[in-house]
Amino acid sequence: MNTENKKLPYYAVIFTSVRTAIDEGYAETASRMIELAESQPGFLGLESARNEIGITVSYWENLEAIRAWKQNSEHLLAQERGKVLWYEQYKVRIAKVEREYSF
Amino acid sequence: MNTENKKLPYYAVIFTSVRTAIDEGYAETASRMIELAESQPGFLGLESARNEIGITVSYWENLEAIRAWKQNSEHLLAQERGKVLWYEQYKVRIAKVEREYSF
Repeated sequence: MNTENKKLPYYAVIFTSVRTAIDEGYAETASRMIELAESQPGFLGLESARNEIGITVSYWENLEAIRAWKQNSEHLLAQERGKVLWYEQYKVRIAKVEREYSF
Repeated sequence: MNTENKKLPYYAVIFTSVRTAIDEGYAETASRMIELAESQPGFLGLESARNEIGITVSYWENLEAIRAWKQNSEHLLAQERGKVLWYEQYKVRIAKVEREYSF
């Protein structure tokens, strides 16, 4: 869990999804995408959980970093395969983190 | 999953947590808190998933609605019990949703 406080404001990409029953390459691509995201400029962290639905929240320094990550060619390919194979539906929300506190 | 688009901007409360091994009243309180949140003014939706960590994202019309929910007396009591019993650690981020798209 990313508990350390970052310099505010930063950005969160909230990715919620419902999976299909198709596993073909999913786990490999999911872990590769985490590895790839972590190597992007402006990446701050990522948290993920799944049972009925999946929620992955990634954190970024600014909107430019998010835009570049969305357009990364390997990520674009994964997004396409995601639509065809792995996801029944998904939703992406881009949100500016204005406040945070932890216990 | 909340796929319908809402009027932008709105707010997300991203609650990430690591549980203790203590279950005492947890499930009852968690579902009561969802029911109670749903009845608050300005509530727009909620999504939740847990395995190693838990992520709950609730959506709200504005910051006032979030503030009122945080101060709700029954919710305050649950927050206190959460710190004492159910959560090893947690983090709350308040974020303004500026953009969204779905598949």
